[in-house]
This record gives sequence, C-alpha cells and structure tokens, in this order.
Amino acid sequence: MSALPQPPYYAVIFTSQRTPGDQGYGDMADHMAALAAEQPGYLGVESARGDDGLGITVSYWRSTDDILAWRRHAEHKIARDTGRSDWYRHYTLRIAKVERAYGWQREDGEKDPQA
Amino acid sequence: MSALPQPPYYAVIFTSQRTPGDQGYGDMADHMAALAAEQPGYLGVESARGDDGLGITVSYWRSTDDILAWRRHAEHKIARDTGRSDWYRHYTLRIAKVERAYGWQREDGEKDPQA
Repeated sequence: MSALPQPPYYAVIFTSQRTPGDQGYGDMADHMAALAAEQPGYLGVESARGDDGLGITVSYWRSTDDILAWRRHAEHKIARDTGRSDWYRHYTLRIAKVERAYGWQREDGEKDPQA
Repeated sequence: MSALPQPPYYAVIFTSQRTPGDQGYGDMADHMAALAAEQPGYLGVESARGDDGLGITVSYWRSTDDILAWRRHAEHKIARDTGRSDWYRHYTLRIAKVERAYGWQREDGEKDPQA
C-alpha cells in the first residue's frame, strides 16, 4: 500500500471495467505505473482488480498541477487512447483533495485513533 | 460502478490487506454495504480486491457529517472491531473531497472531455 504523507494532498480515483483478454494491458499498466512514479509530485499508488474485471486505481499527488502535468505526458496520452480503443468498457475518474488520513497495522496493535 | 453526482462531495478511500481465509468477512462486508446504502448522505460505493488480498473500497458521501454519522453507527463499530481482530493485516483510510469527476462509456463513444 502507499505511504501516508501528511494531508492535504490529492487523489486521482480511477475506477474501470476491463474488456475481456489482456490485449497488451498488463505491460502498459506496469509501464505507466513506473513512469508515473518518476513524475514530479507523485506520492504513491494503490491498485486492485477483482475477478469481475472491476478495478480501482488510486494515485496520490502533491497538487492538481502535478496531476495535470502527468495527464499531459505524451506516453500517458497514448495509454489513455488505447484504453478507450481496447481495454475499457467504461471508467470514471475523480480528482479529490485528501483532507485526513490514517493507517492501522496489526503488528503495531494500535487502537483506531478515531474510535 | 457508482453513479456520478455533481461535485463537490466526499470520498472515503479504504485500502486494506486481508488476512487469509474468510472468517465471516464476506457476509459482514455484504451486510455493511447494504447498511451503508441506507444511511443519510450515501451516494454510492465501488470495491475491488485482487488475488493478492489487497482491496480498495471507495464510498461516496454528501458531507463529512454523513461520514461521521456512519462511522458512529453501532453495527459499523462492531464490524470495525472485528476487522482489526480478525480480517485485516493493515489498512489505510483517507477522507477526500471530490472536486471534479467524469466518466466514459464505450457505448457512448464520447471523447475524453479533458483530452
């Protein structure tokens, strides 16, 4: 899971339904994850996809300007175009400002700080 | 996937790593999803968990007061306690204000509105 920087920062919540078959998706997803991690303002990413093909990827960024710059990255544009032509049945994208964040780990045994 | 209300609204991004085995998790998760949907201010939920046990659930709410009220719900408290005792190795929870949102569907063929 992604680290927990101090809020405020930004989340890009990308929820998508895949088309059947890989069609090069896995390789491109790996490449985009590595490329995103090199961009200014990148804070981390979390991603999960179930057997029903519904996936959620949340990437975290320092600012909306950083998100916009990544959005304009040439390779990212190509990946988005291929996503619409080949990989996705539908998707939603939300930009959200993270106002509060906390974590819990079994090994720490710490209580829920907001219980 | 969840509907797309007009921003602003709030997202609760819950990322978790499951312990092995079900241990009653599936039934409780279904019950919590149904119960959450009955709460004031609930707008929707999206959830995915991969074979590695990493899951992301994003629920959407009209306001932080609605999130707090759901947090205080007695049955939800019990579920959280059981999550920490039985179901999760670790989790993170983030409260984020959704500022922008859009969707794309293959059948609509619409262009990316922010391309």
